[in-house]
Amino acid sequence: MGLNGKLKPAARVSGRRQDVWSIINEAAAASPKQPIVNMGQGFFGYNPPDFILNAAKQALDRVDCNQYSPTKGRPRLKKAIADAYSPFWGRKLNPETEVTITTGANEGMLSAFMAFIEDGDEVIIFEPFFDQYISNIEMPGGKIVYVPMHPPKNGATDNTSAGDWTIDFGELERAITPRTKMIVLNTPHNPVGKVFTREELQKIADLCVKNEIIILSDEVYDRLFYVPFTRIATLSPEVERLTLTVGSAGKNFYATGWRVGWLMGPAELIQYVAAAHTRICYSSVSPLQEACAVGFEQADAEGFWDLCVRDMKAKMDRFNAVWHELGLPYSEPEGGYFVLVNMSKVKLPDGYPFPPHVAERPRDFRLAWFLIQEVGVAAIPPTEFYTDANAPSVEDYLRFAVCKPDDVLETAKERLRGLRKYIQE
Amino acid sequence: MGLNGKLKPAARVSGRRQDVWSIINEAAAASPKQPIVNMGQGFFGYNPPDFILNAAKQALDRVDCNQYSPTKGRPRLKKAIADAYSPFWGRKLNPETEVTITTGANEGMLSAFMAFIEDGDEVIIFEPFFDQYISNIEMPGGKIVYVPMHPPKNGATDNTSAGDWTIDFGELERAITPRTKMIVLNTPHNPVGKVFTREELQKIADLCVKNEIIILSDEVYDRLFYVPFTRIATLSPEVERLTLTVGSAGKNFYATGWRVGWLMGPAELIQYVAAAHTRICYSSVSPLQEACAVGFEQADAEGFWDLCVRDMKAKMDRFNAVWHELGLPYSEPEGGYFVLVNMSKVKLPDGYPFPPHVAERPRDFRLAWFLIQEVGVAAIPPTEFYTDANAPSVEDYLRFAVCKPDDVLETAKERLRGLRKYIQE
Repeated sequence: MGLNGKLKPAARVSGRRQDVWSIINEAAAASPKQPIVNMGQGFFGYNPPDFILNAAKQALDRVDCNQYSPTKGRPRLKKAIADAYSPFWGRKLNPETEVTITTGANEGMLSAFMAFIEDGDEVIIFEPFFDQYISNIEMPGGKIVYVPMHPPKNGATDNTSAGDWTIDFGELERAITPRTKMIVLNTPHNPVGKVFTREELQKIADLCVKNEIIILSDEVYDRLFYVPFTRIATLSPEVERLTLTVGSAGKNFYATGWRVGWLMGPAELIQYVAAAHTRICYSSVSPLQEACAVGFEQADAEGFWDLCVRDMKAKMDRFNAVWHELGLPYSEPEGGYFVLVNMSKVKLPDGYPFPPHVAERPRDFRLAWFLIQEVGVAAIPPTEFYTDANAPSVEDYLRFAVCKPDDVLETAKERLRGLRKYIQE
Repeated sequence: MGLNGKLKPAARVSGRRQDVWSIINEAAAASPKQPIVNMGQGFFGYNPPDFILNAAKQALDRVDCNQYSPTKGRPRLKKAIADAYSPFWGRKLNPETEVTITTGANEGMLSAFMAFIEDGDEVIIFEPFFDQYISNIEMPGGKIVYVPMHPPKNGATDNTSAGDWTIDFGELERAITPRTKMIVLNTPHNPVGKVFTREELQKIADLCVKNEIIILSDEVYDRLFYVPFTRIATLSPEVERLTLTVGSAGKNFYATGWRVGWLMGPAELIQYVAAAHTRICYSSVSPLQEACAVGFEQADAEGFWDLCVRDMKAKMDRFNAVWHELGLPYSEPEGGYFVLVNMSKVKLPDGYPFPPHVAERPRDFRLAWFLIQEVGVAAIPPTEFYTDANAPSVEDYLRFAVCKPDDVLETAKERLRGLRKYIQE
């Protein structure tokens, strides 16, 4: 495949091993168990609510909603977001200077890194991490410093809480150097499902204030929490001054294909994020920005945010019942729509024909491959979200996304019961 | 505004002078002549055709069209594009390997630069250039080498053709070094309106083949040409092997706010563009990709491509009639929707109160400011698209976008007649 000589690609796009998404998708396509129940990628198996879809359709009839939006986003959407989040901040957010719209949260985070990272600047991220962080930090020349989240010690034998995944604050402090420019936080957390406590956030924030580190808080699952949820920006003015909060309409409104995200934060930081976004994408999709504005304007009156929590928690409980049946321990999520299940009790048959690109990866890749082939359910191996050094700590886990229709969840459970004959106590 | 110390922004987003778009938009907002007729930015003043809008609305009812699309784009859209362009290529394009979807042409071009440019690689661009090229080349560390297009010598006195803007091929050849990795071509050209002839393209291509230079051909105005239009990729297999062709649904379907673009080219190059796009935006907007697929599938049957040319040429002729009335020479476009008008005969009153950020720029900025204040029509000063060294060659021109409803064009003409009293023969 590779090009040489003058047509050679840049290092940033060449020579990476095959990513988890293509491995799992190709495995699913090749499985004898068709159709596969795909609980791998976190897309919704149902539509945004009608009040938002109708707003999108109406926007398509308006000339201005089909043409370029301002690079920083449509004024109506920025105002709707500022109004929606002002109660959490406890003050009126300025939609013109403290909110900027991006092409999904992903490009929003890239814009933040492009705005502040230069060659050799260090960015601290926690393991497990969302895989796109890596390339997004490396593109502007950043150096990634990893700090692991430690799984509960009894995760292989007992049901635990996502809150039992812990940070060693000594490790975190030792990871900070004079070159540490940013830290990435993710709460509610993908894939762990942990909602960081106020006390944990305060400890992280204290280190950032002391060392003048910009906090990039990925809060895209912010409407899905089953325990109290604190936004780090709201801890104090000293913390807010350093914090960029990332949001996602795709995650909030069941529309991962809409590519509308935003960053909120102090005007002094947001201006540079907006400048980077302009250089990357120029502007973001207009009619769907307008629909998202209506989404925020009407969500409370529609009772939508409460419905989000209620529906997703019910899906989580419905799906996880199968692990009780099977006696496989899982980590009870505090937020989001992913659950990590510990499969150390699942015995993979000796001599099972794993293809080389799976056989050479940690055990969770083999588990994922095996489930796809033998029971027809796709899940994600979480070692993809760890450095090689720390991968062994989670090689018995698989990540399942429950943001699917109830009948799909029931089909998945029925199939997963087929695992029983491979389970050893 | 600036931050210092550890919160300092990256050089790539700091310290640039105010861009033309914000200068013109702020001038328009502050003008006494409200509402301003905005012929500055190239957005359409009317909607996409109904068959495409209806396809977008139908897509919004489908679950899969609201969730993540494959990172390389929706299969239906890639196939529709491959089918639409195969006749021009004279062979069947492979939708899976020779087409990749991007978040607008802008992010598509950034993806191409991110895929191939490393620190110190050189990229040749022609002046005038689309301003986003600059930051997109600089982000991955590219060095820009400029080659001017020369305006017609009699442009201040006679009506000329956009085809009279010429490249000195000796200058082009001297710009090539062993570090030259890419060249950016734009045809039909913004802002000149030039459609490069087959002979000109062949000369450029010969130099690229000889020196193994990747050709990034920005053909976003490819459905708007009023003279024969050649696509450089189609000259020969040797040229095609080096060529990435950029397209834009926003420009093709009157929907600049949809943010759907694509690159076509040899599989060996396209794979890396797709990899870069994945790292930048992950995937592109799903329901509007689906609508664009329908657009390509049905455009011929709807007679849409013929209509595009006929309608835009009629708008061009309708608008340019005012320059004949006023005796101001213009450069007759061969393609696209921009016209460059030479205003050397317009005498700006002595002592006119230009604000400092306009007064310090070349004369075209003062002309643009003056038109906004005195006649209420916004146009773009083209020296923004030149290096300082070559800016004087176009400081008497202004760029007008004619992609507006006919009644808007008539209002603009009526206002522009107010220039008569400032015109000196």
